[in-house]
Amino acid sequence: MKITCAKDKLNYAVQAVQKAVAAKTPLPILTGIYLAAHNNKVELQATDYEIGISCTIDAAVHEPGEIVLSGKYFQEMVRRMPGDIVNIESSKEDRTIKITAGMSQFNLLSLPAEEFPVLRRPVGDNLLSVKDEVMRDLIRKTIFACSTDEARPIFTGGLLEADENGIRLVATNTHRLALKKASLESNVDSPVKMIIPAKILNELARVLNYEEPMNVSVYWLKNQVMFAFDDIYIISRLIEGQFPDYNKVIPASFNTVVKVNTRDFLAAVERVSLLAREGEYNVIKFNFANQTITITSNNPDIGKAFETVPGEISGNDIEIAFNARYVTDILKNIDSDDLYFSLNTPLSPALIKPVDDENYTYIITPVRTN
Amino acid sequence: MKITCAKDKLNYAVQAVQKAVAAKTPLPILTGIYLAAHNNKVELQATDYEIGISCTIDAAVHEPGEIVLSGKYFQEMVRRMPGDIVNIESSKEDRTIKITAGMSQFNLLSLPAEEFPVLRRPVGDNLLSVKDEVMRDLIRKTIFACSTDEARPIFTGGLLEADENGIRLVATNTHRLALKKASLESNVDSPVKMIIPAKILNELARVLNYEEPMNVSVYWLKNQVMFAFDDIYIISRLIEGQFPDYNKVIPASFNTVVKVNTRDFLAAVERVSLLAREGEYNVIKFNFANQTITITSNNPDIGKAFETVPGEISGNDIEIAFNARYVTDILKNIDSDDLYFSLNTPLSPALIKPVDDENYTYIITPVRTN
Repeated sequence: MKITCAKDKLNYAVQAVQKAVAAKTPLPILTGIYLAAHNNKVELQATDYEIGISCTIDAAVHEPGEIVLSGKYFQEMVRRMPGDIVNIESSKEDRTIKITAGMSQFNLLSLPAEEFPVLRRPVGDNLLSVKDEVMRDLIRKTIFACSTDEARPIFTGGLLEADENGIRLVATNTHRLALKKASLESNVDSPVKMIIPAKILNELARVLNYEEPMNVSVYWLKNQVMFAFDDIYIISRLIEGQFPDYNKVIPASFNTVVKVNTRDFLAAVERVSLLAREGEYNVIKFNFANQTITITSNNPDIGKAFETVPGEISGNDIEIAFNARYVTDILKNIDSDDLYFSLNTPLSPALIKPVDDENYTYIITPVRTN
Repeated sequence: MKITCAKDKLNYAVQAVQKAVAAKTPLPILTGIYLAAHNNKVELQATDYEIGISCTIDAAVHEPGEIVLSGKYFQEMVRRMPGDIVNIESSKEDRTIKITAGMSQFNLLSLPAEEFPVLRRPVGDNLLSVKDEVMRDLIRKTIFACSTDEARPIFTGGLLEADENGIRLVATNTHRLALKKASLESNVDSPVKMIIPAKILNELARVLNYEEPMNVSVYWLKNQVMFAFDDIYIISRLIEGQFPDYNKVIPASFNTVVKVNTRDFLAAVERVSLLAREGEYNVIKFNFANQTITITSNNPDIGKAFETVPGEISGNDIEIAFNARYVTDILKNIDSDDLYFSLNTPLSPALIKPVDDENYTYIITPVRTN
């Protein structure tokens, strides 16, 4: 292989695939970045068998071929290379790859390219097409609610559904649940329902940061999903299992509905939670009465906190306790000025949603206190 | 105690003393911040017995008194308080302190103020007076060369000297030495010579970030030093012991003197050092010949790096090896466009200094290679 390419493009491609490079693995080949040069294109790939990322860029291909380089060193090297142009050339004599740019020359030992589990881009129609900003918003507003407990794998992923009603992403750790819906511009041939690991969705949201609007094509391949956009595709395993019926979790009616300013409420909850940090449940109490939300915490070793925030309260007065982090997590993701906090009893799930977005729902289970 | 003060000022004072709050200590009182309110001033103090910091701000003192609050919680609380004004009031009934701002109220348990080892600001003439930017520059350009090995305490501090020739700060870990000199505007009554812990000097440089120029007064109190400026003073223990005679370490003459562009040289050294990272000595090789500096590294597990940088070389050709980090550390601290790299033999110490600053000297010991 012998190629010449723009440093900026190479750096972009290396950064794009880099998150799929395995850090610790019994298979050394997975610590590498695979480069395949053909027809004036270079495709870079990395995979740790959980996630695989491919990125293709333009290059002058003087000699086609495939190589695998240490992901860790290649990435740092490309980032620091001088000038605008990088040359990469494999040696016929030994297993080294010569990388040159300006007055810099690196001879990196290569990994055996024939051992790399090359990702294949599937052919055929895509299942659905989503705007990048819609996909990013779905992910950002739900995936934080996932569990990190690997003992119950389905809760470590987000449920992606798409049908004639649009697209939905749902995440829950069983104590709280976030649901975000969006409409689709094109029809879905057959309904989609799959659980995608949180890690991969977060990575997708990170990479989807283009200035120009762009469509993300989603393909479903047995136990894998692929997201394709621009010159990148990301392949992920799916999580097997039955996701609970989230519609059953959403209460149909409420005894108390509170409207409150999102920013003021978040600031007050964050301050009160300073004194609730210790301990497993991180509990803070809310009292809704007299058009005022009173938020309190009590930590015998440190002290007490007490805040009031004005709110429009309709319905019954209620006192209820929540895990402080479960409340702040959702408040940070609400973009509208005001939110609705809807409640029934001190022991039944409550609902938080933005005033101006019917398509965003967050359910939170209270903590039982004495 | 009962006071009212501006939140911004209180936050400034808490942040200033915060680095002296002990994190882990068998003495709980040292985890606190001490507040003393008298004569419409509040003085905040914290100390871990290594370093003590005091900061005094204006306040409306309704009732004078002293209290001690948990440093960790008080700091976070003040930072997040709403509005512009904070009230602090101790309760006569119990050991709590009421802190209010806007609609926020915190009742923090207090620590026993009578147990706090209150810092006393010494009276008398100051030993010397240094401009803040001079002090910061002395610290920034030398203290990185200190050792972190507590087994040899004198090398974990910087030697501060002041006499009729001006002020000097020196730091060494025995493999490299950094010396920075500056002139003083006022005379020094008696020569100053003391070893100050690197941690405290770094903290001093961090706090000395005023927009207005300012003088730092330095006082010497038996085994302590105090730096006073604006409304802050920092007291530190001194390190006891005999600092080596650094003048003996600086070679009187050189066989080879090289002039090179600082930025280009740093970029090349950093790239070559990518492949030298593993292992204890982090070795990279330099060859000075034909008006060219050739920098190489060789890591059998990863590969080789090879860079050339043009330089003006006078004297003998020489090949020599250094710990890469010892070279990059100094290059990052040289502000001038070009530097001099002066050498004798592959086994004798070399000197690096900026072209435009006679008062900055860095000595580096080579690594023996085969």
